[in-house]
Amino acid sequence: MVLVNSRNPLNIGAAARAMSNFGVERLRVVHPYEVAFREARSAVGAEPILAAAEEFESLAPAIADCSLVVGTTGRDLRGAAGTKQVGGRTQRQSREPLLRLEEAAERIRATLGGGGNVALLFGSEKVGLSNREMERCQLLLRIPTRDEHPSMNLGQAVAVVLYELIRQTGAEPVAALPAAPAPTAAERERLIAVLLEALTLGGYAHGGLDPEPKVRRLVRHLELTAADLREWLSLVRQLVWKLKNGVER
Amino acid sequence: MVLVNSRNPLNIGAAARAMSNFGVERLRVVHPYEVAFREARSAVGAEPILAAAEEFESLAPAIADCSLVVGTTGRDLRGAAGTKQVGGRTQRQSREPLLRLEEAAERIRATLGGGGNVALLFGSEKVGLSNREMERCQLLLRIPTRDEHPSMNLGQAVAVVLYELIRQTGAEPVAALPAAPAPTAAERERLIAVLLEALTLGGYAHGGLDPEPKVRRLVRHLELTAADLREWLSLVRQLVWKLKNGVER
Repeated sequence: MVLVNSRNPLNIGAAARAMSNFGVERLRVVHPYEVAFREARSAVGAEPILAAAEEFESLAPAIADCSLVVGTTGRDLRGAAGTKQVGGRTQRQSREPLLRLEEAAERIRATLGGGGNVALLFGSEKVGLSNREMERCQLLLRIPTRDEHPSMNLGQAVAVVLYELIRQTGAEPVAALPAAPAPTAAERERLIAVLLEALTLGGYAHGGLDPEPKVRRLVRHLELTAADLREWLSLVRQLVWKLKNGVER
Repeated sequence: MVLVNSRNPLNIGAAARAMSNFGVERLRVVHPYEVAFREARSAVGAEPILAAAEEFESLAPAIADCSLVVGTTGRDLRGAAGTKQVGGRTQRQSREPLLRLEEAAERIRATLGGGGNVALLFGSEKVGLSNREMERCQLLLRIPTRDEHPSMNLGQAVAVVLYELIRQTGAEPVAALPAAPAPTAAERERLIAVLLEALTLGGYAHGGLDPEPKVRRLVRHLELTAADLREWLSLVRQLVWKLKNGVER
């Protein structure tokens, strides 16, 4: 459970209470608006979770050890998805899949069943997750609220998502695939970094283009196992080495 | 939705907000502790529900027109069910069935489907529904919280119960992803070829290693769309170009 930019400590306490109700222990808080959230009275019975909460200044380290990063949003991306205003023009932009909570829960349970850590991101009360934060997510989920009133209270949204994860799903998966370990967010970041280095050395950024958003999106789309990711990493590092030596000669 | 003896108006407001989120309109309040609940600031976006809430002095008239009365409880009645301390002696007492929320929801949906009104009763924050109040219920439900910490915040409990009622039992994706076209075998071959060219220029094959089987396997593992494949292709071509120019300089 990762709470990003939460403004109201009472909501952090309420989130902790729901975590305790549903048996989820690890709370991470990124850049909370009020530092005194650990005393939130709303955490009735969940004081140990607040006491053990880890605090981060930015999102990346808070999700570094997670193999699935899931963002929550109340926005209906059906219409807006795939387009972004850039310099007055609408540009196509591929967003991560937006799933209803019920469906996303299946993916989350599969990852947990395979032994991977899952980060569940909740944004600030006012504006939710920013676009930059959503770009870190492999999956976006939306609680199926009414279109006319999608904005939920943070503590209530946390409770609903956790309930969906622990509720009894009638049908159990017949044959759980022996899920190959997925890379963590930190491993993905390493691949992104070395690709960016290669492209910069390769003159890609020459025309003033910032390759980062594109590379980030392309890597996010790859359903890599941790083992495959390491192989790609070593291949690209080889290219980087050569590009450096070629240029320096 | 019937809130009985609620103490904190903020919880009434939060319940109203969840009702609005999930499309439930009729709120009845029995003997609220504070009469000024209609101004609760927590009812963000749900002010009409609070304004239209009906107030009752006792439970009976609040549920008179309902064909199914459902009580919510955090108590685990499995052990204690059927017995009650009366005048120092344990007396048998027939209690209504206590179901997990998931099961109770099926009964509730069936009644609603048949055109009947359903009363969902939530008791006071401190003690929940009293025995007298539970005796009015045809069904008791329990949110499947941990035995060690069953007591939920009222607003969160309301949100979870309403979510279970509206959730899709079949679970369809919100935005049926417009299945992105997959690349053809020929396009995959182009990517493999240009990766091999880059690796050869990059000195990978120097030690007599043939990179082809590895590259072929790694590319096979990628679940790329045709559009993403073309982007990778152009990125790697850029590297190939630089590797050639670097070497030829």
